[in-house]
Amino acid sequence: MRQASIRDVAKLAGVSTATVARVLRGTTPVSDALRERVEDAVAKLGYVPNAVARSLSRGRTQLLGLLVADISNPFFGEVARGLEDAAVAGGYQVLVGSSDLNPERERAVLAAFESRTVDGVALTSSTADSSTLRKLTASGMPMVFIDRRPADVAGPAVLCDNEAAARRAVQYLIGLGHTDLAMISGPRTMATAAQRLAGFRAACAEAGLSIRPECVREGYLGIEGGSKAMRRVLELDTPPTAVFSFNNLLGVGALSATREMGVEVPGEVSLLTFDDMTLFPFVDPPVTAIAQPAYQMGTEAARLLLDALANPAAEQPKDIVLPSDFRIRSSCAAPPPRP
Amino acid sequence: MRQASIRDVAKLAGVSTATVARVLRGTTPVSDALRERVEDAVAKLGYVPNAVARSLSRGRTQLLGLLVADISNPFFGEVARGLEDAAVAGGYQVLVGSSDLNPERERAVLAAFESRTVDGVALTSSTADSSTLRKLTASGMPMVFIDRRPADVAGPAVLCDNEAAARRAVQYLIGLGHTDLAMISGPRTMATAAQRLAGFRAACAEAGLSIRPECVREGYLGIEGGSKAMRRVLELDTPPTAVFSFNNLLGVGALSATREMGVEVPGEVSLLTFDDMTLFPFVDPPVTAIAQPAYQMGTEAARLLLDALANPAAEQPKDIVLPSDFRIRSSCAAPPPRP
Repeated sequence: MRQASIRDVAKLAGVSTATVARVLRGTTPVSDALRERVEDAVAKLGYVPNAVARSLSRGRTQLLGLLVADISNPFFGEVARGLEDAAVAGGYQVLVGSSDLNPERERAVLAAFESRTVDGVALTSSTADSSTLRKLTASGMPMVFIDRRPADVAGPAVLCDNEAAARRAVQYLIGLGHTDLAMISGPRTMATAAQRLAGFRAACAEAGLSIRPECVREGYLGIEGGSKAMRRVLELDTPPTAVFSFNNLLGVGALSATREMGVEVPGEVSLLTFDDMTLFPFVDPPVTAIAQPAYQMGTEAARLLLDALANPAAEQPKDIVLPSDFRIRSSCAAPPPRP
Repeated sequence: MRQASIRDVAKLAGVSTATVARVLRGTTPVSDALRERVEDAVAKLGYVPNAVARSLSRGRTQLLGLLVADISNPFFGEVARGLEDAAVAGGYQVLVGSSDLNPERERAVLAAFESRTVDGVALTSSTADSSTLRKLTASGMPMVFIDRRPADVAGPAVLCDNEAAARRAVQYLIGLGHTDLAMISGPRTMATAAQRLAGFRAACAEAGLSIRPECVREGYLGIEGGSKAMRRVLELDTPPTAVFSFNNLLGVGALSATREMGVEVPGEVSLLTFDDMTLFPFVDPPVTAIAQPAYQMGTEAARLLLDALANPAAEQPKDIVLPSDFRIRSSCAAPPPRP
């Protein structure tokens, strides 16, 4: 079937093509009855306005930009997927750029977004100096943060309950009998790392447990980083009996280190990580994890952007804090008896 | 520190700002000595030309577009990461759009790319009617295909040795003693699905094995699809003793079906899949897989695009066919004895 044209829509609605264009542009007031007739015809014919032409006439590109740290990290893949699905439902497409946490790459992606390639921007894991971000805000570009927000930049954020979730999970480890715990954390400058570490410390403090300084490893990222940090922890004269990992890739790295060193999980050390992964239930042993609603974080961010685009004059919305899900599997158990 | 301006560069190099602009544009010939002086000043000051201004003056955006089927599939995440890393090394950024194998979404992403948002396009898993793609080619946009190429469109491709790799893997299963094999395949219209199925059939034919029609499940995608197909196969009166999965997500779905049905891998059924995943070595049992060089497929595609942008008059390069890696783990074994 040939694709419907604006002429087909006009004919079916019994109006001129100029009227169809006016209704679709949405900038000139038209009567409700007229709008309904045109929208009915659009729906019946499955008419898709030419995106380029439409963007030129409206000064919009119908594109949203998403900045992520690492597109090959499944967490960001899920966020992107959620953002996309909701954006597409609202008539937008998403372009994803990735920074590798490199400020220069991030600036380049944001510059591409800023030059009106996109109508709105969602940012995860921003490392940008806030001046770049403030410039973007000042340009009037609708903006939303996902996962974390730099301290001195305004803009709504979709966040997870990082500190509370970490605290609850560590309470679970303490409940199993652990008194000597370690955390493999991310870079100190990353808000989520600081929040999850705070949750770890809070749970230990509540239980009257002290944390050995060498059992808090900060600054690691990626599978390699997780493996290295886990080795350092397990090679201590007295290794801790439970390890809490800041995120999915650090958790995978920690797991691989236990395999390489022949350390049994959970027999010799319990392992618990922030972020779930599709295959964690199938791993030997199935990995206990705090699942962030990554997909939903994406859809909520899209909703905030679409709302801002539909109502440019509206007040800035409040942050959205989504609950995580604690999934107990088999990688944590009571600590081994100590001599 | 305030960011260096073109004026700072000119002052340090002892030339006019017009000369700096000329050197940076790279379109007008300048003496090597002059170029060196300007480039030294740029490096010393860490000067970053405004991307928008630069793209306007050169008619380029320094952006590459990547179309993928599903950004949350780790295979595409790795391809994107490889493309990005190589693009960034060449002074480009990448914007990724995802089609969900929906032709309408794909058209919208390609329209955004076509309207000169980007300087070159890499396409994976295209479902587009070839007219959309031919329009893009006709516009002079450098284009490269990754993973597969629609039959009637020109353009270089970076491919994996799909048929040969599938054949080798199935030969391995046959070598273990299997005589009754099944394949969970993707949609028939997907070139890679057809190629891997051809490899499966060839290996069976060579060994004189016939394949039961109900043991070739076509048209499945995603984890859900893999689980459903695996259930159908395992619920046969006489289930096959080995199953070959078309890709990673179908493989995960097949694995989850065996868990849910209490079927032992590899004791009751051997499982082998195209595409490796980070966690496959840690799964119970570790999953035997054909690893595609996804990251390298991305870097090679970037190289082809950067070459085409640097030498617009060059002849179209040949396809690049990359070898896969067969990773034998523990999910395949000799078939169980039959009564």
